[in-house]
Amino acid sequence: MRGLCQEAPAGRAETPGLLYFRTVNKPIRYEDRGASADKAEVHKAIVGEHPGLFPGAFCKVLPDTLTGSPDHCVLVHADGAGTKSILAYLHWRETGELSAFRGLAQDSLVMNIDDLACVGAFGPFLLSNTIGRNAKIIPGDAIAEIIGGYRDCIAMFAEQGIVIESGGGETADLGDCVRTLVVDSTVVARVPRTSIISGEKLRPGLAIVGLHSGGRASYEASENAGLGSNGYTMLRHEFLSAHYKATYPEVYAPEIAALAYTGKYRMSDALPGSSMTVGQALLSPTRTYAPILKAVLAQAGDAVAAVFHNTGGGQTKCLRFGQGLTYVKDDLFAPPPVFKLLRDNPVMAARELYRTLNMGHRMEIVCEPSVAEGIIHASKSFNVDAKVVGRTEASSGKNRLVLKDGAAEYQYEL
Amino acid sequence: MRGLCQEAPAGRAETPGLLYFRTVNKPIRYEDRGASADKAEVHKAIVGEHPGLFPGAFCKVLPDTLTGSPDHCVLVHADGAGTKSILAYLHWRETGELSAFRGLAQDSLVMNIDDLACVGAFGPFLLSNTIGRNAKIIPGDAIAEIIGGYRDCIAMFAEQGIVIESGGGETADLGDCVRTLVVDSTVVARVPRTSIISGEKLRPGLAIVGLHSGGRASYEASENAGLGSNGYTMLRHEFLSAHYKATYPEVYAPEIAALAYTGKYRMSDALPGSSMTVGQALLSPTRTYAPILKAVLAQAGDAVAAVFHNTGGGQTKCLRFGQGLTYVKDDLFAPPPVFKLLRDNPVMAARELYRTLNMGHRMEIVCEPSVAEGIIHASKSFNVDAKVVGRTEASSGKNRLVLKDGAAEYQYEL
Repeated sequence: MRGLCQEAPAGRAETPGLLYFRTVNKPIRYEDRGASADKAEVHKAIVGEHPGLFPGAFCKVLPDTLTGSPDHCVLVHADGAGTKSILAYLHWRETGELSAFRGLAQDSLVMNIDDLACVGAFGPFLLSNTIGRNAKIIPGDAIAEIIGGYRDCIAMFAEQGIVIESGGGETADLGDCVRTLVVDSTVVARVPRTSIISGEKLRPGLAIVGLHSGGRASYEASENAGLGSNGYTMLRHEFLSAHYKATYPEVYAPEIAALAYTGKYRMSDALPGSSMTVGQALLSPTRTYAPILKAVLAQAGDAVAAVFHNTGGGQTKCLRFGQGLTYVKDDLFAPPPVFKLLRDNPVMAARELYRTLNMGHRMEIVCEPSVAEGIIHASKSFNVDAKVVGRTEASSGKNRLVLKDGAAEYQYEL
Repeated sequence: MRGLCQEAPAGRAETPGLLYFRTVNKPIRYEDRGASADKAEVHKAIVGEHPGLFPGAFCKVLPDTLTGSPDHCVLVHADGAGTKSILAYLHWRETGELSAFRGLAQDSLVMNIDDLACVGAFGPFLLSNTIGRNAKIIPGDAIAEIIGGYRDCIAMFAEQGIVIESGGGETADLGDCVRTLVVDSTVVARVPRTSIISGEKLRPGLAIVGLHSGGRASYEASENAGLGSNGYTMLRHEFLSAHYKATYPEVYAPEIAALAYTGKYRMSDALPGSSMTVGQALLSPTRTYAPILKAVLAQAGDAVAAVFHNTGGGQTKCLRFGQGLTYVKDDLFAPPPVFKLLRDNPVMAARELYRTLNMGHRMEIVCEPSVAEGIIHASKSFNVDAKVVGRTEASSGKNRLVLKDGAAEYQYEL
């Protein structure tokens, strides 16, 4: 324990931003470490950008400029492994194993595919990657692992009936800009307009089905810790110890030195409550839910109003979608060990964690209550637990979110 | 002058890599600063990747997975502004003006569009950008400038009849990975297979037309220094003085500290032989040649065997295309001031400069000699100078390149 905890009072909507407190009167925000949960600055910067064909959809949907077909639309989507790349680097430096670099391809790719699946796009996909590295620090063999990882991941998707065609990409040696490594992907899809999940069906009275982020899906090689590739600025610095700061100055921004690697673990330490080490949990590959969502939409598509991928923004992601809604999530999954450890750490504010991490279900489906059981059954057929975690209610003003975590309740507003 | 120069003997093909010499017996390579001209490591890492439909084309060409049309193909291409972003950052820090960030959008976008134009793709294009920043250093207003710059650049292309549809992109706060700023773009096109410049027509006996990199094109707002967005690791450190190293430790990799900012200029200094300052020259936006190439191919497409965009690899880019060819370039443009200054610096080896920078023409068209005059005329109609800079001859073995720069001759092999 590194300080006193001061939880935000439950039951009161606050200005987002203030997160957790290390000492009374000394709040530390996610933003203090140079990351952003709500990306307010970015949203401000893109004001005036065209919202696309379906402004309420999870991703921006464009007219099919490529073929001119009025019946189709296209999506072009960019995302990456974020600062999770630093964990692969640390794993290599501490163990000599390059294998963790391989997983970054899946992290980078799935962050795109699963966003696209939220609008009902399941390929065929076009893929391009952009790798930026400090060539003085990241060897060519690590790049070869990443590129091999893309091949593996494309093969895994193919087995699930999801076709991804890779156009290769760009690997740039940018040591003056990049401390270690950045692994980004861009994915393109073209789909019939009628298949888009537009968000227009969002209304009060719908069920929210959560797909569990832990366990081991039928298409996974091992148990998954449940993390996506977001929130890693918090995760790294909260879990990992000053050893990493002292030994590898290239793994943090000097501007946040005072808040860097303030945790108590080495990557080789056991993760309490889990059979994984801390390193294994943090490097656990980003699971794709696309095979499950594809099955769900084939079966109950008309009754699905929205699908939310709880990455940046965590459980509050839903707030930006629909109008006049209160999202009530009052029967959440028990958080998998990596999340539980954060929640039980008195230094952390649970309210903030839910704003940053998925905490137990990374994917949620807002649907007619009548199809919820069928969706749960479909998910379980892939060995991914699922349940009704909440519902939509009417809100008189802005969208709201009420989260219940045991006895605690957290409220958020758009 | 910071050391003795030891030029590579002219007329002998060498192993690429050794570049220029600051002191005898102490060679300094482009790679020593963490950048790569020939990207040997990257090429090794992607061995085994599918070469696409037209292995001899300038870009990887994929089957049209998006629509399944056997008559079409698609391209997905990634590139970025590279470390030129650091110059925009320095301009802002030294002058308080955010405007230079705006130009990074054009740099990042044109590096893609002009590569795609080399295979005969002129849109409609889909665009996505990926911006990585250190939020402690790069303000939201800078991101807004970049995003505004994309809008400007898309409008400029539209005026030239080239349609680009933007899907927005991702701005990630990655301070632990990114020292300042990375601005990448990914561009997608779908074109009829018959319109692809496949490189299959490359043979001895063709003319090489160079499109000048200096001057001011009819669609440009001011004179262009002639640089693309490549080679900036060399350019920054060779031109800019230790002032930048001392004042802004965030603009270089600590691993190359001894070679960082070893030049003699401030950005506000006049660039000798030019009306620009050093900063204006280095920040000069990456010119697109796509409007010219579109006109050229409409007029003489059947007689064009290849188009090369001389970015990374500089004048040696051609070596990777065709078989059994000697590219002879013996009537080059006089280098614009920024290149001349490097060439005349006794610390630099001209042989290396030609391997890294375009040195005077960033675009070259390999064509039937009979159409060369018409191509030159077309280019001049856009106020971009052009001339026959060389020809293809037969080579008994690997592709070779012979470059003549006045009395000096430089040879390169694939």
